[in-house]
Amino acid sequence: MTAEEQLAILRRGVVNIVPEDELLTRLRSGSHLRVKLGVDPTAPDIHLGHTIPIFKLREFQDLGHQAVLIIGDFTALIGDPSGRSATRPVLSRAEVAENARTYVAQVFKVLDPARTEVCHNSEWLSRLTLEDVVRLTGKMTVARMLERDDFRRRYTAGTPIALHEFLYPLVQGYDSVAVRADVELGGTDQTFNLMVGRDLQRDAGQPGQVAMVLPLLEGTDGVQKMSKSLGNHIGITDTPEEMYGKVMSISDPLMVRYHELLSTAPEERIAAVREGQIHPMEAKKGLAAELVERFHGSEAAEQAARFFEERFQKRTAHRPTEVRLDTAADEMGICQLIKEVGFAPSTSEARRLVHQGAVRVD
Amino acid sequence: MTAEEQLAILRRGVVNIVPEDELLTRLRSGSHLRVKLGVDPTAPDIHLGHTIPIFKLREFQDLGHQAVLIIGDFTALIGDPSGRSATRPVLSRAEVAENARTYVAQVFKVLDPARTEVCHNSEWLSRLTLEDVVRLTGKMTVARMLERDDFRRRYTAGTPIALHEFLYPLVQGYDSVAVRADVELGGTDQTFNLMVGRDLQRDAGQPGQVAMVLPLLEGTDGVQKMSKSLGNHIGITDTPEEMYGKVMSISDPLMVRYHELLSTAPEERIAAVREGQIHPMEAKKGLAAELVERFHGSEAAEQAARFFEERFQKRTAHRPTEVRLDTAADEMGICQLIKEVGFAPSTSEARRLVHQGAVRVD
Repeated sequence: MTAEEQLAILRRGVVNIVPEDELLTRLRSGSHLRVKLGVDPTAPDIHLGHTIPIFKLREFQDLGHQAVLIIGDFTALIGDPSGRSATRPVLSRAEVAENARTYVAQVFKVLDPARTEVCHNSEWLSRLTLEDVVRLTGKMTVARMLERDDFRRRYTAGTPIALHEFLYPLVQGYDSVAVRADVELGGTDQTFNLMVGRDLQRDAGQPGQVAMVLPLLEGTDGVQKMSKSLGNHIGITDTPEEMYGKVMSISDPLMVRYHELLSTAPEERIAAVREGQIHPMEAKKGLAAELVERFHGSEAAEQAARFFEERFQKRTAHRPTEVRLDTAADEMGICQLIKEVGFAPSTSEARRLVHQGAVRVD
Repeated sequence: MTAEEQLAILRRGVVNIVPEDELLTRLRSGSHLRVKLGVDPTAPDIHLGHTIPIFKLREFQDLGHQAVLIIGDFTALIGDPSGRSATRPVLSRAEVAENARTYVAQVFKVLDPARTEVCHNSEWLSRLTLEDVVRLTGKMTVARMLERDDFRRRYTAGTPIALHEFLYPLVQGYDSVAVRADVELGGTDQTFNLMVGRDLQRDAGQPGQVAMVLPLLEGTDGVQKMSKSLGNHIGITDTPEEMYGKVMSISDPLMVRYHELLSTAPEERIAAVREGQIHPMEAKKGLAAELVERFHGSEAAEQAARFFEERFQKRTAHRPTEVRLDTAADEMGICQLIKEVGFAPSTSEARRLVHQGAVRVD
């Protein structure tokens, strides 16, 4: 495949490539590019938001390039402040190690192990000394750091920025030097960090990496970035039923966005979903089945669909008009009530329904 | 001596003791206080400005306390940004080692070696890892750092602050933890750093040190803090003649200030100098002789005084009204000319005279 053809594939679904002409030059060189993706094990599971750059990495692999997956077991201890409005809680080594335990297995649901170099950044970061840190921080100014959107907002609002948060972009950038990355993948909130990596590499006499910026996936609330800590995530280790149910619970506009960012269906089908030529319920079912199949196989997808239909859809058809309860309704939370009467499989699912405005009282 | 009597001595010439009641409590405990002073070998010589806290440290020693002198061979590599309007040039290890070579010998011109613990902060700072730095920086916010006068001024003016400069106060504070300081001495521009040390100690479960803030000595220009890099310093290894001559060159108001900060003469004499009851020229000669004697002995002081009188004062009486030169005057700088005709012993001394307005053309 020519460099131009490769670029056409790689450019799909990407927000920005900085600088794109350099990527083309490197593709033309015919060498196997080292494509870096760092994931910090700040939560035990990988969710659909993480899978966007992971799938892009898979695309690189399919074109013959080398994936360099960095498990940020050290950076997770600092906590990436990118896009955050407050300092992250500090994790212990034990928590990080526990989170990291199944990360690689989860990632290999998407990546090709044969073309993946997996490393933990504690390998080199735990060897850095104060003197190294002085050298590294000497390459960055306070003003440039405070020009970053998230930091500027926090500084202006008087929300504390702990000084260790300023180390994060430099340390992530140092990873690029350590693995000699040609390309680094990241969400839009990573743009600054990706450029720092490029600068540090050039400072170290390496060619600076190309930054490939990918869209951020909104969580099931349709508002905030998908995040375990916000509880709006769909984990790739969620059970088939959970995953199917969560996809079915999202709003129609979000369903279109999920199609665009997650589905591998042909462009024509996605256009049909976008333009409402496919009924939203059917479109959602298609997406839910596609995603469950991707992470659990086709049999699980069929089962999850059946489970959903029997448990919720058919029940909806025979929805009881009156429900007798053992306990007095006024002693019960609304979510508990919804669960008890069988409108939702759990109180957390009920809570989601309430938040989406699917529940009306009287 | 009672704690109150000790405090009365120690308080002399001090700008601030934070908090003073804690110092009294510790003095009352009767234990030998560990009194920390850190000096970064950023220049080869100690100057009179440095001697102010060193003399205070000597006072503590004379009261039976333990001096802890930290040679900042590591911190000199970072460069203390306190009171600076721009990032310091980065020194190499070799430069710092060369500067540090005679530091201890110079300091022992004032301190009692028997009650001085000398350490180099590279002993513990070079062992700090990135993880330690993350922990340390996690205790400080960006906003608190930018509230510091010097940093705020630079940030507001758009003068770059390199990120490593933010590490300095924390690293200096860590020194206090490492040596378990009871008291730390520093100039007024060190107040922030001293308080950071206090915080870090308390965070580490130690009693927080008492900060003893001393005045900063202006250089011979009478305007800026004495500093080798500004060329307005009087080094304690200057030759007796240089030292004597530099003291004689200062302005009358600065001479009063030098008496207050440097002289050990009785308070009555200093008051007499302040109120002009002693002729400024005589007062200056007394101070010059006192300082030369302190660092070079009484014989050197007498010689320097004689040298000064013969070379400059008597010459002034027989000042030539016309001077013939071998080279054309218009091919010569004014300072060179002043030296050639014997009005100054060197061009740098001539430059000082020009700056002070002592030279008029025509």
